Amino acid sequence: MAATNAGFVNINSDLGESFGPWVMGNDAEVLKIVKSANVACGFHASDPVVMVDTVKLCKDNGVSIGAHPGFADLQGFGRRVINLTIKELEANIAYQIGALQAIAALHGAKVTHMKPHGMMANMSAESAEMCDAICRATKAADRDLIFLAQANTEQGKSARKHGLRVAEEVFADRTYGDNGLLTPRKEPNSMIKDAAQAVAHVRRMVDEQAIYSTSGKRIPCQVDSICVHGDGPTAVTVSTAVRQGLEAAGIRIVPLTEMPNLKH
Amino acid sequence: MAATNAGFVNINSDLGESFGPWVMGNDAEVLKIVKSANVACGFHASDPVVMVDTVKLCKDNGVSIGAHPGFADLQGFGRRVINLTIKELEANIAYQIGALQAIAALHGAKVTHMKPHGMMANMSAESAEMCDAICRATKAADRDLIFLAQANTEQGKSARKHGLRVAEEVFADRTYGDNGLLTPRKEPNSMIKDAAQAVAHVRRMVDEQAIYSTSGKRIPCQVDSICVHGDGPTAVTVSTAVRQGLEAAGIRIVPLTEMPNLKH
Amino acid sequence: MAATNAGFVNINSDLGESFGPWVMGNDAEVLKIVKSANVACGFHASDPVVMVDTVKLCKDNGVSIGAHPGFADLQGFGRRVINLTIKELEANIAYQIGALQAIAALHGAKVTHMKPHGMMANMSAESAEMCDAICRATKAADRDLIFLAQANTEQGKSARKHGLRVAEEVFADRTYGDNGLLTPRKEPNSMIKDAAQAVAHVRRMVDEQAIYSTSGKRIPCQVDSICVHGDGPTAVTVSTAVRQGLEAAGIRIVPLTEMPNLKH
Amino acid sequence: MAATNAGFVNINSDLGESFGPWVMGNDAEVLKIVKSANVACGFHASDPVVMVDTVKLCKDNGVSIGAHPGFADLQGFGRRVINLTIKELEANIAYQIGALQAIAALHGAKVTHMKPHGMMANMSAESAEMCDAICRATKAADRDLIFLAQANTEQGKSARKHGLRVAEEVFADRTYGDNGLLTPRKEPNSMIKDAAQAVAHVRRMVDEQAIYSTSGKRIPCQVDSICVHGDGPTAVTVSTAVRQGLEAAGIRIVPLTEMPNLKH
Repeated sequence: MAATNAGFVNINSDLGESFGPWVMGNDAEVLKIVKSANVACGFHASDPVVMVDTVKLCKDNGVSIGAHPGFADLQGFGRRVINLTIKELEANIAYQIGALQAIAALHGAKVTHMKPHGMMANMSAESAEMCDAICRATKAADRDLIFLAQANTEQGKSARKHGLRVAEEVFADRTYGDNGLLTPRKEPNSMIKDAAQAVAHVRRMVDEQAIYSTSGKRIPCQVDSICVHGDGPTAVTVSTAVRQGLEAAGIRIVPLTEMPNLKH
Repeated sequence: MAATNAGFVNINSDLGESFGPWVMGNDAEVLKIVKSANVACGFHASDPVVMVDTVKLCKDNGVSIGAHPGFADLQGFGRRVINLTIKELEANIAYQIGALQAIAALHGAKVTHMKPHGMMANMSAESAEMCDAICRATKAADRDLIFLAQANTEQGKSARKHGLRVAEEVFADRTYGDNGLLTPRKEPNSMIKDAAQAVAHVRRMVDEQAIYSTSGKRIPCQVDSICVHGDGPTAVTVSTAVRQGLEAAGIRIVPLTEMPNLKH
Repeated sequence: MAATNAGFVNINSDLGESFGPWVMGNDAEVLKIVKSANVACGFHASDPVVMVDTVKLCKDNGVSIGAHPGFADLQGFGRRVINLTIKELEANIAYQIGALQAIAALHGAKVTHMKPHGMMANMSAESAEMCDAICRATKAADRDLIFLAQANTEQGKSARKHGLRVAEEVFADRTYGDNGLLTPRKEPNSMIKDAAQAVAHVRRMVDEQAIYSTSGKRIPCQVDSICVHGDGPTAVTVSTAVRQGLEAAGIRIVPLTEMPNLKH
Repeated sequence: MAATNAGFVNINSDLGESFGPWVMGNDAEVLKIVKSANVACGFHASDPVVMVDTVKLCKDNGVSIGAHPGFADLQGFGRRVINLTIKELEANIAYQIGALQAIAALHGAKVTHMKPHGMMANMSAESAEMCDAICRATKAADRDLIFLAQANTEQGKSARKHGLRVAEEVFADRTYGDNGLLTPRKEPNSMIKDAAQAVAHVRRMVDEQAIYSTSGKRIPCQVDSICVHGDGPTAVTVSTAVRQGLEAAGIRIVPLTEMPNLKH
């Protein structure tokens, strides 16, 4: 593919994480910031009605829709280790993507990317075997889906091997270690809560197409998308600043489907 | 549509009703008898792995695959009244059909019909409003899906109104009342357990395109498919006899997708 | 029992309705107002960890603990009709009360009352058969449990027949019809959102031991407890005012277990 | 405790593992063989109604009732790794034991032992921290409960430390390694399917109060109970032979609560 992502970047966030009577997150605010949403599919969060409402909100805001499958563990929000077999993982991914596809169709909308959630994301980032199962299921659901991968992990490698388009994402409010992976949450400097610091962090990653670790190590990678969060006291402020900072620098914020290097 | 179903009939059954470690039914035997399967979608029975295995078995046996969505009630097997809102019903149907569509795609197979399960079927048979929600969700998932309807109920009426192809089914092992509906299970003569009686019952319905009630009343209707069961002591014997009886009379047993009046 | 409830009243509220990562309600505030809590048991809300935390909060605040069993329907929050058999209902009630009893024991606390939740409460208020099943299960769990009943319904009648102690409750923020039952929520005047009005409403019911309908009809009943809510924009304000209004009138607010007519 | 278990042994099995419409196992046959049942509590198998029915069957057969809590994973039958926190584990155990206690009370029966299920059993056998949480929850539910422990594991050690009575169990149809633990199921010689061999295996363990590994190593331990299974083609035959073999040798088969060394 000759096109590069220069001058463009996507911003994505996890959305539609309410369940039954329980509201989570601040979707209305987040939808003003992001251009792609990772929509929970009912296994770790959400339910069919929440999915319908979330799809509608995305469509109304010009935000592209992605499936965000997770482990079947509502109480643990998909953040606990569950050792599925490869066959179970593959079936669970197909099930969840397909469910969202038909829900999206209720509003004439289309699922255009996928991104694994929580512990499934963390485990697959380091497991080629898990990624292969996830990619097989993704291709079965729709071979046109973009795989939104944690930068520099097995996810992107596997997705490219399976012929899927890949967007690599970095985090606006998280720091990185020298291995190019996120600093674990339990460490003190894992989060970036200062808006100006987050803007500088993101701008450097986008401009240089590289991650910088907390020790200053430069790790080149493709930076197609910035992941932001809507929960926590500082999240919306930080996320808004990041978007404004990128736009101020002349970067265009677009849905994943409109990134020059991802478009058909 | 000029074509009629003369000389052809479909046989269908509910399949893939195991869950996790629990096995239900006798799918291997039933697959020798039927030509279309209504595959549970994980809400009242089944799980993603059972769905994968069931799709594979159907494909290997030349049996067409239908979605069989039900109320989200594993413990009650979808047989309890649950008063969903119309919006919830619509979302639940789309979710389940979509899930099976992507699971089917894992084996390169396609979902070609849908049939509601259990109490959702019973309640919708008498509710135009429920049927409309079911049909909207069905069309969103795939407007080519055939709606396999209980003969002479709101299901077929609604599906036709929504422009869906409709197959009407009668039951091989159940009797009918003068209202054209199934004799409730709690009544003594509701079940037909004698193979010869079932064969005569089915042949008359297929030949005359009509239901006969236990009192002898003739209720004309379209008879595209015979529903058989695989559980219970007499089910497989009765079902096998029904298939053999139809074939002996020169009727061809085909998947729903190959019925002359349903083919594109 | 010779003792009357004169000069005393209980205030109760539903608590512990969070689930997994999803927070519901404002338990810390409500615990300053009430003296008895109806603790969700994991079927319509809550989970084992939320139950542990809620029990701890109740104990620390001197609030007596009640089981608040509901239909097994997290997504619907126990507010949907589900037609359980009597045997299923009885088993579900025993299961939930027992679960909370052992959880309470983790903190050396004790469950001392029970009150059905949501649609199970509404349906049982008018069904002696359901109430009998609920009372059988309650007695099996602990025959010392106080049944906190909607005033003037089948609940109190049945509980007395089964030899259980009964507390009758009225609602601080809801109006009543001439039949002595709550005005349905969909009607415009069903809710009382004005604090002064709620205080007057409650004081009259406690002073006169009677419900007054919106049309002014007086329906004598035992008024042992006032049910308040912690959610919604006006709930905590109204509930606080009700407690202060009662105390200002010299009424003592005590746990159900310390009501003179309910004490052993 | 001066009493020894000489001349006595218990036989136990997992029971009540059906769920909703799905039947598992052969409880009626197994109840003729065992004297103590480990009853599933609804998290990995069973539901409130199955629990009621199982308690009734146990009571009618003079079989003592134990709680058999597992991970909350019906689809995986509690056999998958799930990394609960210690707090979650403790809460889940209390919840399940309490639920069964109240269900048992519906039939005037009492829960007298507990035994963890599946992967929770396997993981806790090697984790003092998990066992401590399980024992805290067990004691909270009823400090008189007997902990039925896998022989020679952390379970017995922890339970004794917490002041619980401990019964140690060995398996009739499984072999042991030199570490005193079960030969993993995937190894070829892990199962004993020959009845005569199982009888000799069990008699030697009971007579000598020791496990013999497949290599012939003798590992002394307390042998209070023999665990048998009711599923699989040979299970009932083997289990019946084991019971008969023990009785033929003059060993009395009694409920855990009547073992001389466990009685109060």
